[in-house]
Amino acid sequence: MIFPNLRIVLIETSHPGNIGATARAMKNMGIEQLVLVNPHCYPSPRATARASGANSILEQAIVVNDFAAAIQDCQLVVGTSTRARTHAIPRLDARAAAAELAAQAISTQMAIVFGREQTGLTNEELLQCHYHLSIPCNPQFSSLNIAAAVQVVCYELWLVSQACTPIVNATADAEATMQEVTGFYEHLEKVLIQIEFLDPVAPKLLLPRLQRLFQRSHLSKVEVNILRGMLTAIQKKLKVLE
Amino acid sequence: MIFPNLRIVLIETSHPGNIGATARAMKNMGIEQLVLVNPHCYPSPRATARASGANSILEQAIVVNDFAAAIQDCQLVVGTSTRARTHAIPRLDARAAAAELAAQAISTQMAIVFGREQTGLTNEELLQCHYHLSIPCNPQFSSLNIAAAVQVVCYELWLVSQACTPIVNATADAEATMQEVTGFYEHLEKVLIQIEFLDPVAPKLLLPRLQRLFQRSHLSKVEVNILRGMLTAIQKKLKVLE
Repeated sequence: MIFPNLRIVLIETSHPGNIGATARAMKNMGIEQLVLVNPHCYPSPRATARASGANSILEQAIVVNDFAAAIQDCQLVVGTSTRARTHAIPRLDARAAAAELAAQAISTQMAIVFGREQTGLTNEELLQCHYHLSIPCNPQFSSLNIAAAVQVVCYELWLVSQACTPIVNATADAEATMQEVTGFYEHLEKVLIQIEFLDPVAPKLLLPRLQRLFQRSHLSKVEVNILRGMLTAIQKKLKVLE
Repeated sequence: MIFPNLRIVLIETSHPGNIGATARAMKNMGIEQLVLVNPHCYPSPRATARASGANSILEQAIVVNDFAAAIQDCQLVVGTSTRARTHAIPRLDARAAAAELAAQAISTQMAIVFGREQTGLTNEELLQCHYHLSIPCNPQFSSLNIAAAVQVVCYELWLVSQACTPIVNATADAEATMQEVTGFYEHLEKVLIQIEFLDPVAPKLLLPRLQRLFQRSHLSKVEVNILRGMLTAIQKKLKVLE
């Protein structure tokens, strides 16, 4: 779990499938606390089905009757809305909001609030928030599904919690040394002459071109061995092997 | 619309609701081209309902019978999978993948591929990809809903499309299409059998290994021609050319 002091609040969600999909999106990103304000139809088998195994989130979800109850013990409340509002609540995009929340995560009770499927948050609800979070998107089609919006926000939270550690490809083969690669190029040149594809008198740019191709792929030791094995097989077949 | 040369490919999607939700997620982020490989149930009113107004994406979606048809004219194919694979296909997280795609967006036909709801992409499908995209997430619960995964990837594409002007690599050769590359692999296999380096009865992992090597280097059209020229020269020398 990341950010144990953070809750996701959904207000008056109409479709129970969206509640289940929200639970799944949260658990995918290590966020556990869900608070539902007046859901229209909950619990529901459709919520459980769409949660696809994130049942723990649904089982621990708290259902309350009004927004005030959902956030009463919070110290930092972020309201999500795609629409620009006239209110001068400070606006943050999803990435900046994640950074702001992460900076306060240890000592602060925090909520990120998502409004109704059709109408979002009311102005009154947004006024109770410290920040207005908006997800950058196509201004011509800016209404995200609620669970999709939760997915994007929680994804940014997960990234900031991991401090964007790059993925390390631990299973890759050891890279070949330049000496091994050069040995392969020399062998290749020899075979290209033997199959009369390369004219040693007028070699043109063939070898540099092939070298560029193989340099781009960063050959491993195993791959150099395979390629040299192929060259040797050609030479055996042509009976040109000394 | 951003990245008009980019398509989203869904393989054998079981639930039509996920197709609709994918269309909505794409349109939210300004991505328009959807290709469906053997969807289980499509068109469907459930897809249309979940698209919530992104009907234009569904109406223009192309349905094909196999994966090869979905990517045959593509020059850059990115496969999405949460599972780590043993293959050494270069792995990128969603943000890095978006940057890579954006850098090539002007001149390259590109696809991002999403697998089946239950089982994702097969190893064979992933082998046809240049990159393996994974969305950073909770390793204890790492299976995102497919439309949610599309949402996160398209969100990163939207961000990068707004942030930077793509770099045009004017001097580079045109990249080969997947059809051209597949033609080279078939030719290579034939020659490897003819030089008795590949035993067709027990091929082991030789061809997948070589495919990975060449996928990593993003072959250009000119390079495919050179490599096939080499193969033909070997066949002439061996007098095995029909």
